[in-house]
Amino acid sequence: MHHGSAMLLRPLAVLLRSRGFSSGTRGPPGSRVAVVLSGCGVFDGTEIHEASAILVHLSRRGADYQLYAPDVSQMHVIDHVKGEPVAETRNVLVESARIARGQIKDLCGLRADEHDAVIFPGGFGAAKNLSTFATKGKDCEVNADIKRVLMEFHKARKPIGLCCIAPVLAARVLPGVEVTVGHEEEEGGRWPYAGTAAAITVMGAKHCVTDVDQAHVDCENKIVTTPAFMCETKLHQIFDGIGQMVQSVLKLTAN
Amino acid sequence: MHHGSAMLLRPLAVLLRSRGFSSGTRGPPGSRVAVVLSGCGVFDGTEIHEASAILVHLSRRGADYQLYAPDVSQMHVIDHVKGEPVAETRNVLVESARIARGQIKDLCGLRADEHDAVIFPGGFGAAKNLSTFATKGKDCEVNADIKRVLMEFHKARKPIGLCCIAPVLAARVLPGVEVTVGHEEEEGGRWPYAGTAAAITVMGAKHCVTDVDQAHVDCENKIVTTPAFMCETKLHQIFDGIGQMVQSVLKLTAN
Repeated sequence: MHHGSAMLLRPLAVLLRSRGFSSGTRGPPGSRVAVVLSGCGVFDGTEIHEASAILVHLSRRGADYQLYAPDVSQMHVIDHVKGEPVAETRNVLVESARIARGQIKDLCGLRADEHDAVIFPGGFGAAKNLSTFATKGKDCEVNADIKRVLMEFHKARKPIGLCCIAPVLAARVLPGVEVTVGHEEEEGGRWPYAGTAAAITVMGAKHCVTDVDQAHVDCENKIVTTPAFMCETKLHQIFDGIGQMVQSVLKLTAN
Repeated sequence: MHHGSAMLLRPLAVLLRSRGFSSGTRGPPGSRVAVVLSGCGVFDGTEIHEASAILVHLSRRGADYQLYAPDVSQMHVIDHVKGEPVAETRNVLVESARIARGQIKDLCGLRADEHDAVIFPGGFGAAKNLSTFATKGKDCEVNADIKRVLMEFHKARKPIGLCCIAPVLAARVLPGVEVTVGHEEEEGGRWPYAGTAAAITVMGAKHCVTDVDQAHVDCENKIVTTPAFMCETKLHQIFDGIGQMVQSVLKLTAN
């Protein structure tokens, strides 16, 4: 009668002892990439499909990855059916662990000298939990550990990938970088967040118009960005744009 | 000063008015596929990467999809860092909406005559929230709406795709079907849930050993299954196996 229970609960322990993902656990290690999450769900955390696409592309290219998130409270908990905040608190690290299948570390331990690159998926979490961009726009502040990590990787000349709204983090912390959040006009609803490009320019970065299935590479600063869900389009096109970003990030680790 | 707020909160409304995903909103519609979720996170809900992979493959093949989940409480809320239940309640439909970017319907409204196929990703949610397999194993009960949906699609000879642990739902509800949950031996930890195959056989289904990058097709019953995270392997291999499942499901809609 307890067959099912024994059957499923023991492997849960196995899963938690293992890495959660097997990428990089067998064979010679590839590039070591840190991926920084901001929760679990587009409206108050990491955009789930962007995070998953990043990991699929890293896995296919033989990279080893480690997920991180800050151990802080979310700005909001949004009921994703109603699109409204609810009276609840959730922790960014704990919720991000859902995407990470339990295998995630506190962002405070992320060091550039232990990784070859760092990648930030988007979602409102990047603008609510990793920075105050959602409420302050061009005058936003960036979480101290996020700021430290961006500066460390930049100083070490290790590539930084960002997608969707996350490029605002680089624009705010690293003056003069080139990034994309897609197009600069709404074009009938295809680019509903087109106004973000103007804020990026005001913060002192250069905005480079890029299509959703492409990535923009700032070779000098080793910053790679792709619009992802800044564009209203089919999911596989977002997946492919993220593939371009991951490919360019990994290529820059070789230089 | 409120530029950021205005910039991000208006598009949030745009997002909620739109479909959340743009697949199928432009151009001629392809197959109409229902995807049934069970929460958001491998240990108490839908396995996030399986759900995302299903949607990416459906999008690439031009299928239109609609997400569904039951409006019921989760059996557990698991802290995915600690791997332990916490004293909290969450709703399966509301949490599933995180994967759906808000565009999700109550499972009670899912009708086979409005869709060409139905697909169930895995994760412990299939064994905890859609059935009692996690605690009762071979003697499990299946949520009444899940049972109804499986019987409706089967009777209408419309294909049913399932991955990871979800094939137990078909095994329990549709006697004599062929399904796979991967291999039948643990093989040093590569198949930590290998015991599931025995429970499937006891429930009256036929278990067919299948590798993680393949899908098993029961042509007579139009049931397509793939092991996904039943296997400890690299994420892109799971992604590819799910691609095989989606391809076979869509092929069967044409018959």
